[in-house]
Amino acid sequence: MRPSGRANDEMREVSIETGVNAHAEGSCLIRVGRTQVICTATLEEKAPSFLKGSGLGWVTAEYGMLPRATNTRMRREAKTSQGGRTQEIQRLIGRALRAGVDRVALGERQIVVDCDVIQADGGTRCASITGGWVALRLAVNRLMKAGLVTADPLVTPVSAVSCGIYAGQPVLDLDYPEDSEAGVDGNFILCGDRMVEVQMSAEGATFSRDEMGKLLDLAEAGCARLSEIQLEAAKNASV
Amino acid sequence: MRPSGRANDEMREVSIETGVNAHAEGSCLIRVGRTQVICTATLEEKAPSFLKGSGLGWVTAEYGMLPRATNTRMRREAKTSQGGRTQEIQRLIGRALRAGVDRVALGERQIVVDCDVIQADGGTRCASITGGWVALRLAVNRLMKAGLVTADPLVTPVSAVSCGIYAGQPVLDLDYPEDSEAGVDGNFILCGDRMVEVQMSAEGATFSRDEMGKLLDLAEAGCARLSEIQLEAAKNASV
Amino acid sequence: MRPSGRANDEMREVSIETGVNAHAEGSCLIRVGRTQVICTATLEEKAPSFLKGSGLGWVTAEYGMLPRATNTRMRREAKTSQGGRTQEIQRLIGRALRAGVDRVALGERQIVVDCDVIQADGGTRCASITGGWVALRLAVNRLMKAGLVTADPLVTPVSAVSCGIYAGQPVLDLDYPEDSEAGVDGNFILCGDRMVEVQMSAEGATFSRDEMGKLLDLAEAGCARLSEIQLEAAKNASV
Amino acid sequence: MRPSGRANDEMREVSIETGVNAHAEGSCLIRVGRTQVICTATLEEKAPSFLKGSGLGWVTAEYGMLPRATNTRMRREAKTSQGGRTQEIQRLIGRALRAGVDRVALGERQIVVDCDVIQADGGTRCASITGGWVALRLAVNRLMKAGLVTADPLVTPVSAVSCGIYAGQPVLDLDYPEDSEAGVDGNFILCGDRMVEVQMSAEGATFSRDEMGKLLDLAEAGCARLSEIQLEAAKNASV
Amino acid sequence: MRPSGRANDEMREVSIETGVNAHAEGSCLIRVGRTQVICTATLEEKAPSFLKGSGLGWVTAEYGMLPRATNTRMRREAKTSQGGRTQEIQRLIGRALRAGVDRVALGERQIVVDCDVIQADGGTRCASITGGWVALRLAVNRLMKAGLVTADPLVTPVSAVSCGIYAGQPVLDLDYPEDSEAGVDGNFILCGDRMVEVQMSAEGATFSRDEMGKLLDLAEAGCARLSEIQLEAAKNASV
Amino acid sequence: MRPSGRANDEMREVSIETGVNAHAEGSCLIRVGRTQVICTATLEEKAPSFLKGSGLGWVTAEYGMLPRATNTRMRREAKTSQGGRTQEIQRLIGRALRAGVDRVALGERQIVVDCDVIQADGGTRCASITGGWVALRLAVNRLMKAGLVTADPLVTPVSAVSCGIYAGQPVLDLDYPEDSEAGVDGNFILCGDRMVEVQMSAEGATFSRDEMGKLLDLAEAGCARLSEIQLEAAKNASV
Repeated sequence: MRPSGRANDEMREVSIETGVNAHAEGSCLIRVGRTQVICTATLEEKAPSFLKGSGLGWVTAEYGMLPRATNTRMRREAKTSQGGRTQEIQRLIGRALRAGVDRVALGERQIVVDCDVIQADGGTRCASITGGWVALRLAVNRLMKAGLVTADPLVTPVSAVSCGIYAGQPVLDLDYPEDSEAGVDGNFILCGDRMVEVQMSAEGATFSRDEMGKLLDLAEAGCARLSEIQLEAAKNASV
Repeated sequence: MRPSGRANDEMREVSIETGVNAHAEGSCLIRVGRTQVICTATLEEKAPSFLKGSGLGWVTAEYGMLPRATNTRMRREAKTSQGGRTQEIQRLIGRALRAGVDRVALGERQIVVDCDVIQADGGTRCASITGGWVALRLAVNRLMKAGLVTADPLVTPVSAVSCGIYAGQPVLDLDYPEDSEAGVDGNFILCGDRMVEVQMSAEGATFSRDEMGKLLDLAEAGCARLSEIQLEAAKNASV
Repeated sequence: MRPSGRANDEMREVSIETGVNAHAEGSCLIRVGRTQVICTATLEEKAPSFLKGSGLGWVTAEYGMLPRATNTRMRREAKTSQGGRTQEIQRLIGRALRAGVDRVALGERQIVVDCDVIQADGGTRCASITGGWVALRLAVNRLMKAGLVTADPLVTPVSAVSCGIYAGQPVLDLDYPEDSEAGVDGNFILCGDRMVEVQMSAEGATFSRDEMGKLLDLAEAGCARLSEIQLEAAKNASV
Repeated sequence: MRPSGRANDEMREVSIETGVNAHAEGSCLIRVGRTQVICTATLEEKAPSFLKGSGLGWVTAEYGMLPRATNTRMRREAKTSQGGRTQEIQRLIGRALRAGVDRVALGERQIVVDCDVIQADGGTRCASITGGWVALRLAVNRLMKAGLVTADPLVTPVSAVSCGIYAGQPVLDLDYPEDSEAGVDGNFILCGDRMVEVQMSAEGATFSRDEMGKLLDLAEAGCARLSEIQLEAAKNASV
Repeated sequence: MRPSGRANDEMREVSIETGVNAHAEGSCLIRVGRTQVICTATLEEKAPSFLKGSGLGWVTAEYGMLPRATNTRMRREAKTSQGGRTQEIQRLIGRALRAGVDRVALGERQIVVDCDVIQADGGTRCASITGGWVALRLAVNRLMKAGLVTADPLVTPVSAVSCGIYAGQPVLDLDYPEDSEAGVDGNFILCGDRMVEVQMSAEGATFSRDEMGKLLDLAEAGCARLSEIQLEAAKNASV
Repeated sequence: MRPSGRANDEMREVSIETGVNAHAEGSCLIRVGRTQVICTATLEEKAPSFLKGSGLGWVTAEYGMLPRATNTRMRREAKTSQGGRTQEIQRLIGRALRAGVDRVALGERQIVVDCDVIQADGGTRCASITGGWVALRLAVNRLMKAGLVTADPLVTPVSAVSCGIYAGQPVLDLDYPEDSEAGVDGNFILCGDRMVEVQMSAEGATFSRDEMGKLLDLAEAGCARLSEIQLEAAKNASV
């Protein structure tokens, strides 16, 4: 029995509200249960220097938490003082979003996706990827509307969900109470029916190949549902 | 004529929504026009070490901005890498809030008020103080409800507003377009009809004692109105 | 009764010795009672990058303390590790000095004013501004003598003094024992009979508009006297 | 055809030389092809503070590279300035080694495993885990010999290997030329026939569930072979 | 011919003014030609933790430069951001002063000697040692007067001078123009007729054993003269 | 009697193995007794900016220690967080190597020598200089073979050895047990029969000029022997 009373294959309620920031080229507030993340996409006409002259675009991400997003207040972090966990997460978000981008079609420019966790209850990196894609989608819409980009560089949504073995059972979309108990958990990032990243990890435990398969089944179903929500949110956005 | 069309003595629309954070002991989202700040208050039973054994409480503040709170994306800051402006602001917020606290009544504990700007359009430090007081009020309510504090350490709200000389006219509550043009501006922090802090400053300009008086008149009226909104918000909060 | 036995409207003895540094383009040692600050002005023909091509000059300041300037030894600070108080002070010094400079007349160059406190006994930021203006004056003299600047960019001295409410009385020019006791104090920066910056602040206290007026009266008299000393020191300097 | 001429399921030559450091409680030099890593294990009788009184042991890891371990000289990193990649790797090494440790049997003490890459040619994090386990094994042997630990906390070796899709083919044990070309690669960490961590990642690409299965097949065979080498090396060590 | 017109074995004029700081337990301003250093000694009743319970005292030093001590303005440094040169110098000063201290007689306490260069013209580390010893002497006098220390821990002054080969000639007490030209120079620290530290160094040059002997001869004469000045200054000090 | 049983004028066994790194332009592993240092030389066609257009080359060094090179594990250091000791050592290594280089013959390029201590038992800075010269020699050989440099910029080897007064006796080549006991020790860097750097230092002790002479005698004999080993190693190297 899960603490929330959800079925093993049941995700938390997910909503994506777009246009929450007056300045950003694309923005949304994603809620996955009590987890809330503000995602903004910033267009920069200048690509990073290592791409100069390549004609290729770049998407990168930064991840942060408000000090009281968590139950116990956390210390503020900056670009130059981020802990290992934060850096790991934002490298993951950037890599995941790039996997769903046609960088030739995007052209030599950069989009920075900021994912700031307003309230955390497990699954913040997955919510950041899922919401971050919507912010990215809206920023790209603006480029296309302005005629700066002609072929759409974003075909299929990139979405992410966590799964884990909780109380001996494979379960979908771990919330914080589950996440802190589960010896084995994983983050699954999909782009349609293809996988972008799979991170399964055990702290003080191990898992079998069969268990891995069951978590993948759950993740595929979860990400399919997330993709629908992403497309719906992006369709209804004003830009 | 002000860019927003407001009268010289007209504040922007102000709203304070309480209970926006599930973890914090007190929280609100204050909106002053397009400026939005999430304020959370965190209770810590341990006071800072310099107060050990004094029986006195402490209130401190931290201030941050999401990278895309502003029109141009800003670099993230941490506790150890905050720029001069950020430190100046958060020291001001802490000092202002403490001026309205009976530290004996609070007892030897600390309340940390985090003010995170979600969207900026001028006046973020004033909104942080005004909203921060409400978060503080709610956290203290919790202490009193739990019987940990008996005499109310917060009698009169602390509120803040900016005024300045824009296009030769003294105006109340500068928004960003006004703030970036005004040669003279000031932040006025009041606690009832008493002053807590007055900061008038000119960049490449000077002002007379008479002009100073006119800005004070505007500020007194503005803060009186803000206090009503603070008390109303706190009264309606569930805790 | 003030600890020093001074009358409420009596400043400490002030002296300004010029030419104390063989390398700097302008320098002085200002003594305000036991407070001693070495001020040096460094000419840089290159203005900061944000002014490139504007034709406007810039004046900036840095503030430091020798570790044993204070009664208890303090940790050394660097440009990258300055505490909030230090940054706040040096931003104030720079802003104050700029208010008295005609940046068009100065031309596209920068003057860096370093204020290093050799011995502290209250009022170090005010002494830094008052002494800093003299160092700046001498450096500008050198520019004018060399024909690099033709119209004088410095017309009226910028000077500063602190006032506060000590033992219930408004007093001029707080020394350290007064400063550490006063619940309300302020720094007043004037340029002739115009104000440049007013910072009134209460730690755990409040003040009325009437009290504010009395402190302003004291400050106006004090700054008038400081201006005479500044002009006298600059006139007698060898450059 | 692989650049090295190896078959798709062929690992590079692996050797583990023990006792290479006169000071460490356990040490080895692992060579995987041209990749060389010095692994040392340091016993600390004091566990980290979060375990105080728990009776549980801890294993942690640090990872570094000599500046010229790579083809282009790299900047030195410290504990406080490690880049995201370094932190990600050393968190992975620590987590992986802990998965194979019975922390109750180890008792309340800490073992720090340092993995320093002397020469890099792909697969340094996997070599660090595989060699790190041997250093850990030798340090634990010393504890057991001294009677400080009675039940062996290390039953099955933890070993790691990378696999990826190179030129359309699933291949085992990527060297640097393959790693820099492969769009999809993964690190597989096993403890006997159980999995400890699976990290599959695509940079600008995606992969199917079927491809994932083929890489897992390769990894299982590779880690089985590595375990034999680890046990052999540990058996022959003098301590 | 030396730029200053001095004879090869002629030191610059040296003066030591004591009691220049109202807060420090010992202080002086040493002038060696145009080089000026403020030295303060701070008594701390607590010795560093590595000496706890040993009964031994400690003397340590910090070295700094005002930004405009040099001809070109230098960046400020802090304890945590000191460059290699600064750290090398202050380690040297501390080591040199300790060599002349009977740490048993001093007892388990610490004296921190701060050497801040107000104006630099070569030889700042030597002036810091020579002046630092006087500040230390005065602080120890205070300990003895208070009866906290009974046997004098400072018997013979520690003094320092630089020598080098300038224009092919061995010369005493290099000033900045000589120092920047000399291929070979050295710092010689003596305690009476015994040596404490000898640092001879060549940048892009070498020296013979015979040349080394000639520089030592000059240094011995120079330090003997400095010792007289140190003792005279300490004798005349009010504490 | 020395702890190792060596005669007072007896060095430890020294070996220099070249070509230990597949990437570096020159490399060796130097062993002096139990002290082991990997030295690599990296060619950079771009000289530091302060040499731009001068036609002169540059040699610089970095020094590091693996955390467990020492008996007690040490914290990792980075370029930006190096302690004073590390910076002092690497500045010394760079200065010493440059003294033996004809920078005109080298031409406007830079060689970075990294000295990483794998195992420490006293004398690591001297071993770094001696081994660093061999790595430098091999890198220069490569430049000459490629015709980029025509006149040999390295004529005489630079080598280094420590000497000290142990148990009242002058001894050659201190190992760690001696180094930690000796009140007086020195590092002597020679280039043929000329001296490059002499650093004699006493911690809590002093030394006479006569003792200094005896240490110099030992050092001259030691460095002569080291030079033979350096030349032999370089001669036998494959490049």
